Order: sequence, then structure tokens, then C-alpha cells
Amino acid sequence: MRKIQVKIPSCPKSSYCIAVGAGSLPKILAQIRKSLPGKELFLITDANVVKAKHLKNLLGKEKLPLFIITPAGEKSKNIKTVIKIIEEMEKKALGRDCVVIALGGGTVGDIAGFVAAIYKRGVPVIQIPTTTVSQADSSVGGKTGVDSSVSKNAFGSFKNPAAVFIDVSTLKTLDKEQFNTGLVESIKHALIADEEYLKYLQKNLKVILARKAKPLEYIAVKNCRIKASVVEADPYEKNKRRVLNYGHTIGHAVESASNYKILHGQAVAIGIIAANIIEQKLGFGGKERLAGLKKLFGKLDISLKIPKTITKRQILDIISRDKKAVKKWPRFVLLEKTGKVLCKKGQFAHKTERKIVEETINILIKQKF
Amino acid sequence: MRKIQVKIPSCPKSSYCIAVGAGSLPKILAQIRKSLPGKELFLITDANVVKAKHLKNLLGKEKLPLFIITPAGEKSKNIKTVIKIIEEMEKKALGRDCVVIALGGGTVGDIAGFVAAIYKRGVPVIQIPTTTVSQADSSVGGKTGVDSSVSKNAFGSFKNPAAVFIDVSTLKTLDKEQFNTGLVESIKHALIADEEYLKYLQKNLKVILARKAKPLEYIAVKNCRIKASVVEADPYEKNKRRVLNYGHTIGHAVESASNYKILHGQAVAIGIIAANIIEQKLGFGGKERLAGLKKLFGKLDISLKIPKTITKRQILDIISRDKKAVKKWPRFVLLEKTGKVLCKKGQFAHKTERKIVEETINILIKQKF
Repeated sequence: MRKIQVKIPSCPKSSYCIAVGAGSLPKILAQIRKSLPGKELFLITDANVVKAKHLKNLLGKEKLPLFIITPAGEKSKNIKTVIKIIEEMEKKALGRDCVVIALGGGTVGDIAGFVAAIYKRGVPVIQIPTTTVSQADSSVGGKTGVDSSVSKNAFGSFKNPAAVFIDVSTLKTLDKEQFNTGLVESIKHALIADEEYLKYLQKNLKVILARKAKPLEYIAVKNCRIKASVVEADPYEKNKRRVLNYGHTIGHAVESASNYKILHGQAVAIGIIAANIIEQKLGFGGKERLAGLKKLFGKLDISLKIPKTITKRQILDIISRDKKAVKKWPRFVLLEKTGKVLCKKGQFAHKTERKIVEETINILIKQKF
Repeated sequence: MRKIQVKIPSCPKSSYCIAVGAGSLPKILAQIRKSLPGKELFLITDANVVKAKHLKNLLGKEKLPLFIITPAGEKSKNIKTVIKIIEEMEKKALGRDCVVIALGGGTVGDIAGFVAAIYKRGVPVIQIPTTTVSQADSSVGGKTGVDSSVSKNAFGSFKNPAAVFIDVSTLKTLDKEQFNTGLVESIKHALIADEEYLKYLQKNLKVILARKAKPLEYIAVKNCRIKASVVEADPYEKNKRRVLNYGHTIGHAVESASNYKILHGQAVAIGIIAANIIEQKLGFGGKERLAGLKKLFGKLDISLKIPKTITKRQILDIISRDKKAVKKWPRFVLLEKTGKVLCKKGQFAHKTERKIVEETINILIKQKF
């Protein structure tokens, strides 16, 4: 098992450890009990995780009070689910000395993290991510959020986990689409921070797609290191952390406009292409990177098409309500070159002319890239 | 205008300033605009505050997007109100660069603080408390919370305000019961931290009840100083901050058992008497302090009777679900002497035998003190 420490210099007590292993799931509960003696544990998971037998694998013969999110997926990632879970915890008379364990993908992690952030003004949360996207991204860094009836992640908070346990063996049960689209966050990490890592992903795609333990452990560690270094520098997304939003501005908008029929990873892949088109228009990065990415996404069987039901107006409307919008227009994270985010006057997210963004959306819709 | 700085040593960026004045309300908005240029402001208040003309007084000829909580009071302090407000903010396309202003009593402050804590993962909140209880207590220190259908403050977080503005002139519009019960938090502050302050309150009660500006400013500053010193030492209630819960364990239970028909201050007065009975049983503090407090609450016309509908079992059941309960039994904050909280082995909240607590509740119910 390999360990990565995430330090939060502004609040050393919030620092935490990520443990990466293969086949480690059955040993995690004993480790939690050992490090948190006497704490009441409450487990949050979803119907998919139960079906994949990860819950059984984690618990063994133990029993824990738990909540199974049904149906699994984005559909349940809303404030109503949070209310149901919290009322369940209250009925079980759990005090502020309890600890929430999140076992599952990004949706479970987001919901459970937010529940832990607001239950009786906050209890610790331990993340056990079981998908490519949550192991690469959402389990680390403390962002939590659920949707309102109006928009995505309208409710949320920053809630650093007390610990993260990654067992890459859990990825074996994912269907191909989920596994592959989850790798987009790894590609994003490589693009913003490490050109060599991008080359590794391109060269080793076959063994990664075969879900071999060694390369999966390697990329889990790589992702966590990159994400940790960004989060350490800026835990509350005042500035540098925005680099993690690379590809997410238009990505989120497409995801939202599709009513979440498009998977997050696919939407971010489209968003990454959008960012590359904008970069080209601004004179950063040539056609080569864009072509390489198209090829890589192709190998992952990720379609870069925007569904016909989605209009330019819709995308523009959604990005104007972006959480990080300033005066109702988003700022874009852009690459100066592969592995390096453009930074001007200390800022990592940039004002980008409306005309350029509109042209980019046209290119995406017409698939002319 | 007098200023008190609240420092958060563990997170210097969270430090904030409390400005205390008389008749300052009409000048506050200009000050906020000056210190936060370009920020979109969103105001949260309630129907009582509008009726008392504080909103008009604050805004003058300006207009702000706002939400008026209706009906005012505890009844609206729940997650449903929070959802309504957040959806309203989303519809107004407010970004993460907006600032929430809370104008009103403890309920408004709690709701608005929690909204600000979770809106798009957190935006700043400015507190403008307009009641004795919120000026003395809830506007400072960052505790926020709203109720679920199961219990009080089930949802909440720690959210330090960006600034607090106290205009003691706003207290003139309170009805007598609200004004007087709100003073109980001042009495609590005196009991836990400052014997001289208790004497001041006893001696100057007449001018305080006449709502003269000078004594009201004096007690506002005194309260904020005491609360700030506690909050600075322990912003997230890991230990010392618990002293602020003096009188609140049984107080909260009585308030909750009455279905919030009893005002918070009255409930805390009963809780303070309960703490004094426990202290006597444990050999701390004699009958004199208890007699003095009975007299003081009497002058404030605060009834110490527990409504007949409330049973011992009900109170015991509620305290076992206290947020700070350990293994389903609360810890009690107790005085070693007037102005000094009992501290054993570095702990400020103490295991207290069930028998003693049950006897105390019996004494309260039978009014034999």
C-alpha cells in the first residue's frame, strides 16, 4: 500500500492521508476502527456499489448503520437525498462524535461529504472511492455539492476528508463506459501538470484498459499527487485550484444541458476540446495537441459529439451562471503548453472574449475540429 | 462607534470586526459597499424586521435583491426555508462573488449564515443583528444551523461572518418579552466569565430596561468581548467554546419539548437554574447565587416554570440526543464559582451522573428551588 499525505498549510489539522492499494478493501474497516477508537460509524453508499459487492467486501461479517442511495447516480445527487440521510442519522441518535464513511463513486462521495459537512455543524468523513473518476478526482480535495431543482451543486461546501482509501481492484466491476470516461480526469491532470504523465497514459493505454493492478495503482498515485499539490496550494479555490477546472466550464454546461444524460467524463472531454480550440485561437498550443487528444479520446470510445437537442444559446446561458462567473461571465482555465496552465498576473482563470467562446461552441456543435 | 476585533488564530483570514454603535443603521450599507467594491449584495431579513422599519432604515433609497422570511421566527428556521432562499439566489444568477447580508434576530442570522455557508460552496455573510439575543450571542462566533423535521439545528455549519454591525437603537422596537428574555445571554456571559459584569447587570437593570443607548452599548461591547475571547480560543467548539453552552443543555431540551412555544431566553434561564442546582449538588456554589439569579430573572418577568405538558422522560430523551452527547449522554458545563467555569483535566464539559440530572429535573418540574 502506498501513502500520499495531503497537507493544508493554512489549517494543519485538516491534513489527511490517501492510502492506495490493490485488494485492500477488506482490511479498511479494521484500520478505521483502530485509528478512531470508540467512534460511531455511519456508512453511505449506493445501489450500484451493493450490486458490485464492494459493500460486502468492505464489511465482511461486521454490521454498520448505513444508508443506500437509490437510485444510484446523478439523479439522486440533490438536496432531497441529503435531507433523507440526515433525518436517518438523527433517528439513529448519532451525535457529533460519529464519523461518516463514503463508499462509492463521485455521487456518493459528494453527497456523503456534504452530509458530513453539515450534520450537526460537521462530523468527519472518510472517502473510499470505487470509480475511476472518484479515485482520480472527487475523493481528494474536499469539494462537495448537491443539486437544487434549479442548478448543479447549488448546495455545497469544502469538506476535507479525514482519510481517503483507494482500492484499485474495485474498478474491475465498472462497465466499460464508466471506466473509460473516468480516465478523462487523469488526462486532465496530465494536461495541466505533467507532460510525461500524458505520454505514459498514451503509451500504456492497453494495460490500463485491461485494468491491471500495477498501472492502475500508478495512475491513482500520480492523480492524487497532482491533485494534492494543487489543493495544498489553494484549498478553498481562491485562485490556483481553478486549474482543476480545466475543461470543466463548457464541459459542465454540456453535461447540464443534456440533463445529465452525458456522463461527466464525456462532458469534460468535450470541454477539454473546447479549451484547446480557445487556446489555438489565442495562439497557445497548436493543432498537434488537439489531434493527439482526439485520438486518445477515440481510443477510449468517448464520443465528442454534442447531442442535437443542445443549442448554443443553452450553453451560453448555463456558463453565465457558472459558480466562478464574475459579472455573469465565466473565466477560463487555459494551457500555455502541455503540462502548464496559463498564468497572467498571478491569475489562473482568464477573461475570454464572448466572440471567441461563441465561435468555439459553433465549432463544437458543427464538429469542425 | 466602538470596534472589537475577533481573531481566529488558526485561520487569520477568518478574523473579523464587530462595530457597535447607536443609530448607525442608515450608514452601514455605504460602509459595506466601500469595503467590498463591486460585490453583488443579497439581503435576507424577516417580516418582523420589515414591520419594525429596520429594512427601510438600512436601505434608505437604495434597492437590493432580497428575501423576506415569512413568517418570522423559529417556525421558519428549517431546511425548507434555506432551499427556498438558495433557489431564489440561483434564479437571480448570483455567483460565488456575491455577499449575503443578514438583517434581523437570531433566526435570520442562523438561516442567512447557513445559506452563505453552503451557497455554491460558500460566500461571505455580514451580520446585522437587531435583537438582544442576536446582538449578545448568535451574530458572533459563526455558529449557524436550521432544523429538520426530526430535531433542532440538525443542519448547520461554522461560518464566521465577514463583519458584524450592531446598532443598539434597533432594540427599541422589540416587545418587552423579547427584549427581556434576550438579556439572559448577557447574564450567561457574566456568569461564565466576569463576576463584575454580573454585578453591573444587577445594579443597572433599570436603565437597561429603559433601553438607554449608553448602557445598551456597554453591554453589547461587554458581550462581544467575552464571546470573542472564547471563540478566539476555540472557534470550532472542540473544547473551551463549550462554556458558551452554559445553561443550554437542559435549556434546549425544555425549549424543544415545548415545541418552541417557550422563547429561547426563557428556556436558557431555566437551564441556568438547572446548572446551578447541579452545581450545588456537586458542592460548587451555594444557595446565594441561585437566589440572586431567581431574583434577577424575576425582575425581568421571566417565568422559570416548566409547562405542565412537559415530562421528565421527554427532557431526558432530548438531552440524550444532544449534539455534544458522548455515547448518548450529554456533558454539562458547570461553574466553579461566579465568573469561572469548572475545568478538569483541560475539559470544560463534564460527565454528570444520570441520578443527579434526574433529581435536578424533578426539582425544576416541582419548582422546589
